[in-house]
Order: sequence, then C-alpha cells, then structure tokens
Amino acid sequence: MAPLTGVEVAKHDNAKDCWVIVHGRAYDVTEFLPEHPGGQKIIIKYAGKDATEEFDPIHPPDTLEKYLPKDKHMGPVDMTTVVKEKAEVLPEEQERLKRIQEMPLLDQCYNLMDFEAVARRVMKKTAWGYYSSAADDEITLRENHSAFHRIWFRPRILVNVEKVDFSTTMLGTKVSIPFYVTATALGKLGHVEGEVVLTRAAAKHNVIQMIPTLASCAFDEIMDAAAGDQVQWLQLYVNKDRAITQRIVEHAEKRGCKGLFITVDAPQLGRREKDMRLKFTDEGSNVQSGQATDNSQGAARAISSFIDPALSWDDIPWFKSITKMPIVLKGVQRVEDVVKAVEAGVQGVVLSNHGGRQLDFARSAIEVLAETMPVLRDLGLENKIEVYIDGGIRRGTDIIKALCLGAKGVGIGRPFLYAMSAYGQDGVERAMQLLKDEMEMNMRLIGATKIEELNPGLVDARSLFNHGSTPVDNLANAVYDPLINPAQREKAKL
Amino acid sequence: MAPLTGVEVAKHDNAKDCWVIVHGRAYDVTEFLPEHPGGQKIIIKYAGKDATEEFDPIHPPDTLEKYLPKDKHMGPVDMTTVVKEKAEVLPEEQERLKRIQEMPLLDQCYNLMDFEAVARRVMKKTAWGYYSSAADDEITLRENHSAFHRIWFRPRILVNVEKVDFSTTMLGTKVSIPFYVTATALGKLGHVEGEVVLTRAAAKHNVIQMIPTLASCAFDEIMDAAAGDQVQWLQLYVNKDRAITQRIVEHAEKRGCKGLFITVDAPQLGRREKDMRLKFTDEGSNVQSGQATDNSQGAARAISSFIDPALSWDDIPWFKSITKMPIVLKGVQRVEDVVKAVEAGVQGVVLSNHGGRQLDFARSAIEVLAETMPVLRDLGLENKIEVYIDGGIRRGTDIIKALCLGAKGVGIGRPFLYAMSAYGQDGVERAMQLLKDEMEMNMRLIGATKIEELNPGLVDARSLFNHGSTPVDNLANAVYDPLINPAQREKAKL
Amino acid sequence: MAPLTGVEVAKHDNAKDCWVIVHGRAYDVTEFLPEHPGGQKIIIKYAGKDATEEFDPIHPPDTLEKYLPKDKHMGPVDMTTVVKEKAEVLPEEQERLKRIQEMPLLDQCYNLMDFEAVARRVMKKTAWGYYSSAADDEITLRENHSAFHRIWFRPRILVNVEKVDFSTTMLGTKVSIPFYVTATALGKLGHVEGEVVLTRAAAKHNVIQMIPTLASCAFDEIMDAAAGDQVQWLQLYVNKDRAITQRIVEHAEKRGCKGLFITVDAPQLGRREKDMRLKFTDEGSNVQSGQATDNSQGAARAISSFIDPALSWDDIPWFKSITKMPIVLKGVQRVEDVVKAVEAGVQGVVLSNHGGRQLDFARSAIEVLAETMPVLRDLGLENKIEVYIDGGIRRGTDIIKALCLGAKGVGIGRPFLYAMSAYGQDGVERAMQLLKDEMEMNMRLIGATKIEELNPGLVDARSLFNHGSTPVDNLANAVYDPLINPAQREKAKL
Amino acid sequence: MAPLTGVEVAKHDNAKDCWVIVHGRAYDVTEFLPEHPGGQKIIIKYAGKDATEEFDPIHPPDTLEKYLPKDKHMGPVDMTTVVKEKAEVLPEEQERLKRIQEMPLLDQCYNLMDFEAVARRVMKKTAWGYYSSAADDEITLRENHSAFHRIWFRPRILVNVEKVDFSTTMLGTKVSIPFYVTATALGKLGHVEGEVVLTRAAAKHNVIQMIPTLASCAFDEIMDAAAGDQVQWLQLYVNKDRAITQRIVEHAEKRGCKGLFITVDAPQLGRREKDMRLKFTDEGSNVQSGQATDNSQGAARAISSFIDPALSWDDIPWFKSITKMPIVLKGVQRVEDVVKAVEAGVQGVVLSNHGGRQLDFARSAIEVLAETMPVLRDLGLENKIEVYIDGGIRRGTDIIKALCLGAKGVGIGRPFLYAMSAYGQDGVERAMQLLKDEMEMNMRLIGATKIEELNPGLVDARSLFNHGSTPVDNLANAVYDPLINPAQREKAKL
Repeated sequence: MAPLTGVEVAKHDNAKDCWVIVHGRAYDVTEFLPEHPGGQKIIIKYAGKDATEEFDPIHPPDTLEKYLPKDKHMGPVDMTTVVKEKAEVLPEEQERLKRIQEMPLLDQCYNLMDFEAVARRVMKKTAWGYYSSAADDEITLRENHSAFHRIWFRPRILVNVEKVDFSTTMLGTKVSIPFYVTATALGKLGHVEGEVVLTRAAAKHNVIQMIPTLASCAFDEIMDAAAGDQVQWLQLYVNKDRAITQRIVEHAEKRGCKGLFITVDAPQLGRREKDMRLKFTDEGSNVQSGQATDNSQGAARAISSFIDPALSWDDIPWFKSITKMPIVLKGVQRVEDVVKAVEAGVQGVVLSNHGGRQLDFARSAIEVLAETMPVLRDLGLENKIEVYIDGGIRRGTDIIKALCLGAKGVGIGRPFLYAMSAYGQDGVERAMQLLKDEMEMNMRLIGATKIEELNPGLVDARSLFNHGSTPVDNLANAVYDPLINPAQREKAKL
Repeated sequence: MAPLTGVEVAKHDNAKDCWVIVHGRAYDVTEFLPEHPGGQKIIIKYAGKDATEEFDPIHPPDTLEKYLPKDKHMGPVDMTTVVKEKAEVLPEEQERLKRIQEMPLLDQCYNLMDFEAVARRVMKKTAWGYYSSAADDEITLRENHSAFHRIWFRPRILVNVEKVDFSTTMLGTKVSIPFYVTATALGKLGHVEGEVVLTRAAAKHNVIQMIPTLASCAFDEIMDAAAGDQVQWLQLYVNKDRAITQRIVEHAEKRGCKGLFITVDAPQLGRREKDMRLKFTDEGSNVQSGQATDNSQGAARAISSFIDPALSWDDIPWFKSITKMPIVLKGVQRVEDVVKAVEAGVQGVVLSNHGGRQLDFARSAIEVLAETMPVLRDLGLENKIEVYIDGGIRRGTDIIKALCLGAKGVGIGRPFLYAMSAYGQDGVERAMQLLKDEMEMNMRLIGATKIEELNPGLVDARSLFNHGSTPVDNLANAVYDPLINPAQREKAKL
Repeated sequence: MAPLTGVEVAKHDNAKDCWVIVHGRAYDVTEFLPEHPGGQKIIIKYAGKDATEEFDPIHPPDTLEKYLPKDKHMGPVDMTTVVKEKAEVLPEEQERLKRIQEMPLLDQCYNLMDFEAVARRVMKKTAWGYYSSAADDEITLRENHSAFHRIWFRPRILVNVEKVDFSTTMLGTKVSIPFYVTATALGKLGHVEGEVVLTRAAAKHNVIQMIPTLASCAFDEIMDAAAGDQVQWLQLYVNKDRAITQRIVEHAEKRGCKGLFITVDAPQLGRREKDMRLKFTDEGSNVQSGQATDNSQGAARAISSFIDPALSWDDIPWFKSITKMPIVLKGVQRVEDVVKAVEAGVQGVVLSNHGGRQLDFARSAIEVLAETMPVLRDLGLENKIEVYIDGGIRRGTDIIKALCLGAKGVGIGRPFLYAMSAYGQDGVERAMQLLKDEMEMNMRLIGATKIEELNPGLVDARSLFNHGSTPVDNLANAVYDPLINPAQREKAKL
Repeated sequence: MAPLTGVEVAKHDNAKDCWVIVHGRAYDVTEFLPEHPGGQKIIIKYAGKDATEEFDPIHPPDTLEKYLPKDKHMGPVDMTTVVKEKAEVLPEEQERLKRIQEMPLLDQCYNLMDFEAVARRVMKKTAWGYYSSAADDEITLRENHSAFHRIWFRPRILVNVEKVDFSTTMLGTKVSIPFYVTATALGKLGHVEGEVVLTRAAAKHNVIQMIPTLASCAFDEIMDAAAGDQVQWLQLYVNKDRAITQRIVEHAEKRGCKGLFITVDAPQLGRREKDMRLKFTDEGSNVQSGQATDNSQGAARAISSFIDPALSWDDIPWFKSITKMPIVLKGVQRVEDVVKAVEAGVQGVVLSNHGGRQLDFARSAIEVLAETMPVLRDLGLENKIEVYIDGGIRRGTDIIKALCLGAKGVGIGRPFLYAMSAYGQDGVERAMQLLKDEMEMNMRLIGATKIEELNPGLVDARSLFNHGSTPVDNLANAVYDPLINPAQREKAKL
C-alpha cells in the first residue's frame, strides 16, 4: 500500500473525523477522543496534522500501538508531502532561546539549587510548570526543604576521619551513597531522550533508579538503557484493572527489577494550580463558561485517570502473591501506618508526601521520620522494615540528617530532572558528584566515618515540630525607620 | 397630582430645606438629617438631586417607605425633567473600567484567593474598602487564615476512597458540603442585585445561606429568591427596641427561616481604618477641625447605630420564648462562653471574631475551637451543642481541618462576596465548585470517605497556639551579602 | 550701659575668646567651653554670633542665668546691629517645607502610628533622629510594641456593655483613662513651645503629665501652664551633686507635684547610633581622626553628663526623708527588683526600658509585667505597690492588655511627641481622643465595663516569652517561583 | 652571576617549562606544578612573568625559600628588563576605586557592622569573597549572630556603677576586655601589611592576638611586630607530617607564645560557594567539562591540603609532651566533647563552628555554651577548664551575654579583618574602642561593675534553642492589601 499523503490526512481535521500523524504514521482517533485522559481539545488542535512533537513527552512511544485498535492504524505517511507548520517563534520563546545561549557553564553550578535556577530560565514554561508545581499553596512543597532547616548538628570532634565510607545497602543492593533517583513522570518534557538519561547517570555513580509508571520512555527502553548489573526499581500506580497491574509487575520482575514501590499517597492525582495556570494560557479559551472546573487540569491529572482510588490494605496480600520483589509502600505519612506496614509484611516504606504535589499541609517526610523511629524502637520493630524518605533533599547535610534520624536512604527527584533539563546527562552526573563531595566533607565534619555511626545524638531536632506563621505588623513596620550603615560621601571632600 | 419636576426638587438643596430623589420619588429629609446614622454630610451632598445610586447599596429598597413619616413622602418625580449630572469619569475610575475590560476569564480562577485578587482590581475602591477592611491593624483578619497554616495533616493511606461523601447536616438540614454562606452586609456594594445572587448560587450547590440584618436587599426579597425548599437562616443584630427585634424574628420564622443566629460579638461595630481612610478621601474635607474623631467612620458604623450594647445572657430566655427556630450564638470567643451557651440551652454557637472586623487580637476561631472541644469532651457536652466556626476559610483543607478539630461546619463570607463582585452568580458558583473539588480530593488524600471519619488524630495542631513576632535585625541584614545562583553569561563566549 | 553691637560681639569669635548671643544678650563662654556637656565644637560654631536658634530646644530658657557666673553675662545686644546670617535653604530643607505644605489633614490620622508617619516626613531630620532613635540595633525599641502582638484576647460575650467606664486612679489621682504622658526630653525640637503643649492637651483630657528633668521648657513654665487642679508628676535624673537634686525635689513638691519618678535605668545615657549618624552629617568633620569615639554622641548624651551612676538602693531612704510625694522607681526591669522596691517602701514602680534607648535587648515592659505580677500575687504583695509600664503602647488594646496583666496604668511618650511635632496641641488632643475611642470600643468588645473587670483570664499571653529569630534560606527562596493570581488579559480578546 | 633578564625568564612560559618571578627572583616551578595546593592553572597564568602581586596575599614571604629545593632558585632578575603588564583597569575595578574615594570617614563607623558595610564596598571582590563566605547556605554563618538575638537581658537597677571594670584574665594573662583577636587566614587579601596590623592594634588595646597557621605574614614577622610584653597565642592546623607540626609548636613556644589553640573542627576545609563562584568568574573557563567538581575550590581549600584528617583524641598526649604552653581545643561543638577535653587534661576549649565556614547547620557557639555550662556545673567541672566561644560577636552586649552564660572570653575575627581592610590599623583600633565603649555602658546598664558579677540570672535565654523556619503563604500575602498611613495631599487645597 502506498503511503498516505499529507493532503489525504488533512481532510480528517475535525472532531467528527479526526486523524493525527505520530512518528510518520496516521491514526484515526475520532472514537477515542472522548476517552483521551488529557481531554479532546488538545487532540483536535492537531486534527489532520503532525502531532509528534506534542505527543512525545507525554506518552511512551508504544502507546498507540498498544492501546489503539489496529483498525484505527491508518498506515505510514509520506512525510515529504506533509506541510510543515511554519513554527512561529513567539517573543517569549525567542527570549528563552537567548537565555539558553547565555546559560552558565556547568562548572558554575555548585549545588543542587543552582540547577533549578538554570532550569527555570531555560525550560519551556509549561514543562517548568509541570515539574515545579505542587498542591494548593505549595506550602508542603517548600516545607519539605524548610523542615531540614529546623535540624541542627551536634558534631563530634577529634575523630580520625581520614577514610570516610558512605556506601550502604538498600533492599540488599550495595550503593555508593545513600540516595536513589526516585520516580518522576514525563522525563521528555525536560530532555528529548527522557528517563534513560537518568538511567545512564545513575549507572555512572552506582546509585539505584526507580522507574516511574508515568515515564515518557517505555519501560523496556529504560531497562535496556541500564549498564551491566545496574539495579532498578519499579514505581507502580495501581490500575483499576488489576490484570494490567499484574502484567506490569510480572514483566518488571522478569526484566530484573529489584524492588516494587507501590504509590499509596495518590488515590487521585493532585490539583497543581501553577501547572493549570500555565496550561490554560497555552491553550487559550474564550468562553466565560463558568462551572466546569475540570477543563484545565494541567498535565498531571490528564495522564492519571486510570489510578485506582479503591486501593487498600486488603490488596497487599495479593501483591505479595504475584511477585517475589521486595515490596515498599511509597507515600506513608504517619507512624501508625508504618506499624501497619510492618504487620502487613512489606519490606519497606517511603515516608513521602509526593513532593508536595498531593495534599498540601501534609507534613515533611523528615518530620514524619522523627515521629516514626522512636515508636519503632519502642516497639522493637526498627529492624523489621527499611524506612526511606523523599522530598526536599538538596544538600549532603540533608541526607546526613535523615540518616541520623533513622532513614535507610533518601529519594531525590526534581533536582535531577532540573539538572537533566538544563545540562543533560552531564548535568545529572555533576549533581550527583556534588552530593558525593558534600557528603564526604560533611561526614568528616560531623565526625563520622561510616553510615552506621550516624545516630540521633548527632543532631538537635527539637525545633522540627514547630510550625510558626504570624501576620505582619504592617503599620508599625511602615513607620519604623530602619537603621542604616554609613553612606558614601557624595564627593571626596578632602 | 402631577409629578414633581426636577426644577422644583432642586430648590430644596440645603441643610435647612433638603429634599432628595430616590427611585423616582422625592423625599423631604430635612428633619431626618441629624438622625441619619451615616451622617448629614453625605445626604446634603445630594440635596435637591437624585441620590439613588448612592442610596441603593447601603439601604434595602423599603427603607424610606418603612421609616420616613408618610408626610415627608413628596411624591413621584418626572425624571425626564431632572438634570442628569454629567458623570465625570475620574482617571482612577477610567483605569478601573479598563481593568474590568481586561479581567481574567472566570476559568482562570483556581482558588478562592484568585477571586479576591480580581475583585481588588475591579471593584470600586470604597466598596473594596468596606468589604476588605477589618479592625485596627488587621492582625486578626490575617491571623484567621494564618492560623490554619499552623495545622498540618497526618493522612491515612491505603483506605478505599473511591466513593467520598462529604455531605452532612446542620441544625437538622442536609447539606452537600459542610459550609454555609455566612451573613455579610451591603451586598449591593459588590453587585447591583445584592444578596439574592448568593441565594441563587447557594441553591445550585445545596448549601445554606445566612441572611444578614444589614443586607442591601430587603429580607423578603432574599427569601423570595430562594428555590423550592432551599434552607435559609437569619443573622440578627439585636435592636435596642426589642419590639422591632421581635417583629423581625417572628417574620423570619413565618417566612420559613430555619435558624436564628444572634450576633454576640458586636455590641458596637468596629473601627475599620482602611474603610475610614477610603471614605475620607471620597468625601473630601477642608477643615483642620481636630477633635471630632467620629466624623468619618466608614460605611460600617454608619449603618449600625441601632445595635444594642446592653444585650446579655439575661436576654436568651426571651429569645427562646418568641421563636421555635434553633438559636445559635454567633461570635463566641472562649470556651467558658461555649459552656455557658450549653447551659443557656441554645442549639449552637459560631466561634467567630466577625471576620477580624471587631476586636483586633481576638484569636482565630480555629484556635478557639481547638481550645473548646477537648473541654466539651471532658465535660461530656460535645453532643449537646453544634459548634461552627467562621473566619479565614479559603481552602478545602481548611474545612477539613476545622472538622477534624470538632466543628460541625464552617461559615464562609468574604470569598463569596469577592466572587460575586467580580463575576456575579457564575463566580459564586465556581467558587463553591472549587471548594467541592478541593474537598473531594483532599478527603481522598487524607484517607477519609465520610465526614464522621474526620477526627483529631488526622491533624497535628500542636503549633496552633504559638504566636511569634520578632523585630528584624536590620543592620546585620543590611551587611549580609546573600548567596546567589549562577548568573547568565553576558555573551555566549564559545 | 548702652547695648552691645553686633560688631563688638563678633570680635570674640574663637575658642580662646568666645562670646555668643542668646535671646538678645551676650555671654562670654570662653572658660565654660571645656565643660560644655555637648562639646566645644557646637559652641565655637556660633562664636561671635547669635546662637539662639540652636540653643533653644536643648536648654531651658533660664539655663544661662542659673549656671553661668554673673561676670560672664556681658549684657544686652542691639539686635538690629547683628548681621543676620542669610539662612541658606538647602534642597533637603526645601523638600521638607514642601512636605509640610502637603501634610495630611489632622482628621486623616486614625491611629497613633499615623502621627509618627507624618512626623517623620515633616520634622527636621536631626529632631526626628533624636526622638526616634534608640540603643544599638533598636531591637528593644521595636520589641516594645511587638511584644503586644504576642498577646491575644479571650473576650467575654453577652455582657451588658452599654455603659463603659475606663476611668481609674493613679497614686490617688482620678484620671479619665489609664495612661499618663510620660517624660520625654527636648520638647522644643518638635514644637517651638515645647512641653507646655503637652501640659495643655493633658488638661483637656484629664490625664497626668510627667515633667521631664531634661525638658526644653523650664520646670516652672510647665507647672504654670497647668490648668486648675491639673495633676503633674516629676521625673528625676539624680544629680551627682545631691544638693541640686534636693533643691529640685523640694521645689517640685512646693509647686504641687504629686509624684516623684526617679529614673533608675540610666546610670549613663545610651548610645543611639541613628541620632549620632544624623548629628555627624550635620556637623561635618574632615579628619580621619580615628580613636576618639566620643566626639559625635548625638543629642542625648550631650545633655546628660550630670547624671549620677553611683545612685543605688542606699539612696532611697534619703529621698523618703526629703519629700512627702509618693516615690516611684522608673525603669525597673526584673521581678526581683520590684520585690526590692516593695521592701524599700516606695509607692510604685514603672517597668520600663526607657523606650529602648538604653540597653538593647532589655525585655519589653509588658513581658516583665507578665513575669512580675504572678510573683507579687504569690508573695501577697500585689496591693503593696502600684505597677506601671511604659514602652511601645500604641493602641487601646495595648492598654487593655497591660491592665489585664496587672498594670495600674501605662505611660505613653513618643506618640504624643510625634502628634505635637506634626500638628501641635490639636494633634496631641486628637491622639488622646483616638485612644479613648479605641479604649471605649475595645472595653465593650472584650466584655468589660470597668477597669476592675480586666483580669488575666481575658488574655492569652502564653507566647509572650517566645523570641524567635532565624536566618533566611536565600538560595531556596531564590529558586522558588511564587504562586501568582490570575493575570489581567493584555487585551480583551472577545 | 649577572642577574637574569626579563627576556630570559619569559622563555619559560608554559606548563612543561615554567618559571615565575617573585620579589625580584626567578624560580623554576615546573616540577612543583602538580603539587601546588592552589592548582596548576593559577601558576601557569604567570609562567615567564612576575607573579609577586598574586603570590603575596596567599603565601608568607619565606615560602619559596623554605619549600622549593635550592636548585630551583634561578637567581635574581633585573626587574628593569621585565615588561610591565599594562594593568588594564576593568570598569568594575574603576567603580571600586571610585567607591574608595568616597568612603565614609572612619568617625562615621559607629558599630562593627559598619566596618563590614564599608569593606564590602571597597575590598576587591575576590578578597571580600574569601573573608565573607561560609559553608553551604551560610545558615550557620548568620545563625552565629542571630542566636544572640534570642537572648534578652534581666538588668539589675540601683547598683552603684560609677566604676566599671571589665578587665579579666585569659589563660593567666590579664587583658583589658574579655575578647581576643582570633586567628583568620590571609590577612594580606585585606591589607597590604597583613596580620601585623592586627598585632599592633591589639597591643594598643591590651588584648591578645591569636596567630593563624595560614597567615599571609610569616610567623616570625607577626611575633616581631609585638610590642613589649604583648601576649600572643598560636592557632595550629595539625600537619599530616607531625615533625613539621612539632617544629612549629616548639618554635612558637621558644618565641614566647602563651597558648596553643589546636583547631579540631577542620579535618577538611569547607566548601564555600560564594568564594568559589567569585573565583570562577575571575579565572574564566571555557569548557563544559562536567564532572570535575574540584577545579574551582576557592581560596580556602587551595591552601589547606596539608591538614591532617586523622587527628584524634589519641594525639592529645603527644601535644602535651612537646610543649608547656597551655593547650586549648578550638572548634568544640557539643557538651560531651567539652567533658572529654577536661578528661584529656587540656586547659581550655573554644566552642566554635569556625565562623560558619565548615559545617553548615552547626549550632552557634553561644547555644552550645548554654548547653555546656549547666552540665559542667552539675559535674563540678566548671573550674577545671576555661571555656571560650567565637562566632557572630558584634556588640558589647554579645560579649556580656556570653559571659553571663559562663564563657571566660570571646574570640572576634572577621570584624577586625573588615575594619583593617577598610581603614587599616586606625580602623581596627576604632573597632576595639567601640567594643570597649559599648562594654562599659552596657555593664553599667545591666547593673554589673565587674566581670565576676555576670551570671545566668542576668539573661533570659529560654528562646535560644528555638529554631523556626516556615514557608511563606504567597497567595494570601499577594491578595492582602496592607494598611497604609495617611498619604500626602497632592496639592495644598486650602
């Protein structure tokens, strides 16, 4: 059969007859429109046209092959006959491209925040919006890091720290440093190659990567990108259709995944207003339509409608029955549920609030950790389960604080996304190296030579549970004339 | 009798002989001038002229008919003969009209704060001043919301939250979500139709509206606007003349009101300086008159001189004797008075500081709630009375926090006024829908499927009673050179 | 003897032969130069010239007559022969005069902070510097008001508050409201008439004025300005020469002063850098001289060298022996010393840190009060002594808080100075009236009808002792992209 | 031998054949390049040229003579034959020179912060970067001073404070005031003469100077600069080669040093990003090289590679065996290690976090002091050891707070560097005099006449252990319309 021409495809350019081209092949998505988790509008925008660029970051490449009925696959298109849209470069985009030209050198990034600052300048704003946004007022997002600022060190001195070893094990795997790359969705929004960039960087630094359910790359692509005996874990959103979930889990185990992290803090994906606001601007809208509050949900909720809000403790035995991978519950947020997790016989928990993207005013994982470990020790359970945390970790000292308070390791997500978005694999590797440098130095400075020596006595976390917030005294501030330092003399008078 | 002409009315244009036109009828208000709660000045400004526009938002339409002696009703005016004042559009007003042209679309409002931001830009500044102002330094105004920021969640995971039901009952009425539209004065300042806009929106969302004593619409108008069996409550400022109060209460009961909310926190209406400052500018003044501090009191106090400061616990039995409606005390601010309210045999209390508009440094209702419920439980009284709170509620999570701490429901006022002022009924409906969306999601995320499951164990409110406030170290801040992120390179050097 | 001419006086224009003209009379101050508490430089600047304008605000009019030996009084000067310095109006001064032209009307001041805001704009900057400055980093200055923000109300409701009476007694004198005008130095810096302006305003409002040792007006002028049986107190800096002190005390008692307030927190007057910085600029200086740190001390220390740093508890019996006036120690700062004061048999104490002008990081008086009263009650001493506080009182609510915590009354200083400096006597009267208005309203709102009903149960002062202060997380703040409200649409797109 | 010519030296201008001129003599550093602690790059930049200006602030003058093999000393150079680099004055440097022209007069510096403000404007930015930078987020840097703001005074009144004596002893030496000049590196970055400037100022004020291992001046130069019986101490970084350390200690003792302060908080010198960022800019770099994170370490780490990370408690007896000087451990950070220090038999400890330059989130010394002294008293050890603190002391009140809490004295570093950098010896002397003035006044104001009277009862340090940190509520802040003071009238309307 001769390939289709652009003209032929272009005839199907409306909601009632809607074809799109993806990677040089045409698909009839007319019947699929109402079911598209991301809404009809975004597809109709590309009706009769090439949608590849929009499609790619949001969907793994095998999506259409897997989920669209074969009879809707209309066949290859002769792309030379497809009219290329003259990409109009908006002023805003021109400025972004200029900012990319003037990016700082990678060597000028000295800490994980630096990558975030650069990424904010050079990423497309919708991509930045998806990565950086969080729930409601984004209080938990920021509290995640702020909480570490309420923990202070009590370092030991005069300890021989010539040799410092901060390698450890996680679920039985030896790693070079106690962090792993946690699962984050839609990697291709930040980098054209997507999650495999993280895979390669993780291999270089001998740390574990957790593969996200909502990756831009296909699961197998990410597994294939692994080097030698590189260890990977699977992050799982549980599907309403358990058969699909079972297929995913069994496939992951067969491919060699070494841990199953079931997300338990997302029965519904969060509203992220920054993301919604940016998406809205992008799409346009010209009706004061009013009540339909769900028409501009941002990238996050568009891709997640399959997640099962009915998932409960009763499902855990079934998971144990279908896999031999260690099971870890990701998103535990109170000590009572950690105890329950021990009773349920899982191997680990990740104390996490999903990077502040779900429930605003969820406490930081580090605070939940400080609540949890003393109880586990009281109950004699501290060795029955591995406790991880994620959220807000930006410094080697943050990792050390978590380990002092009893964490087995920490997950880090956004910082690596930002490093990848700004500088690709080099960026991610440098970010990891910076953490290692900080870790080595700060282990020395706290007087610990190995991970086992980190203990609660090395920190003062008494202020961790304090949450202040007080209205400002505007009138008194307005009338107060602040003290100043000596001014320059206007001219040298001598 | 032939209608009056504009020329005839215009002769009565001074303090000693003062007529005004309202809704096409002339009134002789000369003798009434000294008694006008809003002061003489504002009436004299319209002496001999049409005062309708100024009159409308401040007074229910039946005011003159009801309160001005019949012999002062001078009869209809032929409005074609009345010189229309060339409304000079001041630059400030022109800018406001331009801002209205460029208002964000309703769909771009994602939370209740957004309506406030839009309202601030598009409302007349005096109207904004009346709605947004509060007592003294407006510390309590802001504390009302800030206090919620000192409460954090302890969510449960792995709870089947597929079906979430957040309907509840209030004083026996089934409602779709545990908030009601609380009473706020002068609705026509924000919207030409006034409080009936709120009535209609409340009907759509199946929530209760509390009708304010100081409504711009007449009480019966608001009752008439109700749909079917829509439930409404009456907020009552008690008049020095109890006969008037009795008439109001009996009328409300007859018309079908289902609850009587007696305001107990306003023996005198508060000084609101923002309102006073704006009003002053509007009216002008050219005398350095000095001691008369009561000549520019803002809208609030002008309309409230009838309120009885002698109201006391001794009056409660009388109220019980004149109505069968459930009685709720609105404005309780300490646990001791909640206990007294139980003893007095009322059905409920609203912990409230009147939106921060009365006593500055009154504590937030949510803090008083956290003080109150443990004591009620200790005394075995927690089921003897329904406890509501209002003030500062802006998020679904705020509602959940209040219910976890023991509230039966929450009142929301200003946010709906702002939504109405900016977008009319559509705005109010969307605001309510946003709360429902947030409520549904956050019930899921906290692991609760119905209202009864909300309990104190789901929150950490230990910091709620902390009130910080510390002077800034200006000199040390001035000399500290903050860390910065990497700068852009001025030109690409490669 | 014929009056001197300007030419004759002008010959004595240097440090070795130095005459100055004050109020039309010439004085030979050559020998006095080294003893001038304000330094030689300022006098030499006026050698041979008319120094009246500089002299007046700093010295009571009788200073030279009293303290300079008669043989140095060179006699009257024919002022028509004195060359008037062409007062060059600097650009800065021109701007100030313009600001005075555009001052807000007095009616536009709604609270005590407003007067401060106006005064800052219209006062000479050196005068503003002297009044507004405080010790070191001015932390205590601001803490004085901030501390009140850590106290919250627990109002009673349903109390008949139709009649509110907030009159009280202080040292046996009936006053209309529980504040007094506390002593502040150099009133003529703010107003040409000086302290008598405060005297007259105090009379109008029936409150007590405390007369400062360092007044610009002579003591007798201030006494003479009193109306009828107006009550005044004397604030006393104790002189190294006790004979002088005795004369002052005896004279005050004879003139009818009703209380002796001995300042005990100022064995040395504080360094106030804002004042010093402003003074420096004014005087000029052209030597990088280095070590002499005491050459630009600001107005405060210049006028206070006579104060006795050796004053101690041992002196109290002597004071009791020379006067029958009630004795109050002003500047007590810890509960131990209040107990000592009871034992020493004085009638009262003022808990005070001298408006933050002496020891920075001295605690606020309100905090010391909260520490003091429970101890006095424990010891059964609460009725043995009257406890006053001053510092930071700006609101009626501040007064109420102080009285709830056990104060007999409060002193207010700077706010009246600012009101006087901006608007003269009218300003001071309005400031007092505003406090009365606030007091009346807030007594009602807290549910108290008389002063005796104010008690600790009406406030929540648990946070009063908390003093936070935490470095800012600059990097994390720099990379965080704050949430925003919906933007205006750039053009109406419909 | 005839001196070398510039042309001859210039031939050796590359990494494989690299000569440099320092102080008129040529050196062959080719073989030394890989070992240079500061990296090869900076030397190669000067290959074949005169490196004196770059060399001087970083190295004591005898460095090359001491450490470079004699056969690499190529002999004197005829400097008239060396081409002078036309020093291009960059715009940034021109602005700095202008700022120096317009510096405030020394007399205008009223407190220690003022010197820092001036130094920031007039120092070279790399020098400022080295002095002012600290570890990670510089939280500890700022906490060091902030912590003092959580301590408040409880002054005694009516104490005869005519005579105040704040002299004390440190390690047996009588000093005029309880601070010493603590050791800080690279004095010539701030002043061409380096540390001897501090020596001379210390002599004038009779305070002790601690001589740094990493001084720009040679040790003997600094000893030689001492006046009469001026006391100096030695700060010691312990070398991996203990023989070198022994030589240094024995030499210091022989030269008359009266105390040996062994730095125990720096097994590795900290990463200081501000310094690194500034250094990077200076050096330039044009490769996106990626992983080598250690190529731009800032001045600090470049000079410190000899420090022994293996130093431990086991080394203490050896130190006691090689010297009779009192031994003090500098950098102790927890009470447990203070107790250990007593057991180890040393004479003192300095509670210190190295000016915030090592471990970020190390607690302030003043907080560690408040933790330490009660324990020492409990154990009866408070007189067995002298406890010093350093870090963040900027005010006389800070010194008093430290002494009240039990410190024997305090070390002050950066403030004197800043004073020296801005104003040379005069600046340092004035800084010291300001501290004495503040000390005298505040001793009086707190009611203490001698050091021994300072005790914990004079302060309220209950808030010292509180560490807050809370995310900002951006949305609520954005919509809140702050209260304002009355505006000016645009024109006088009267």
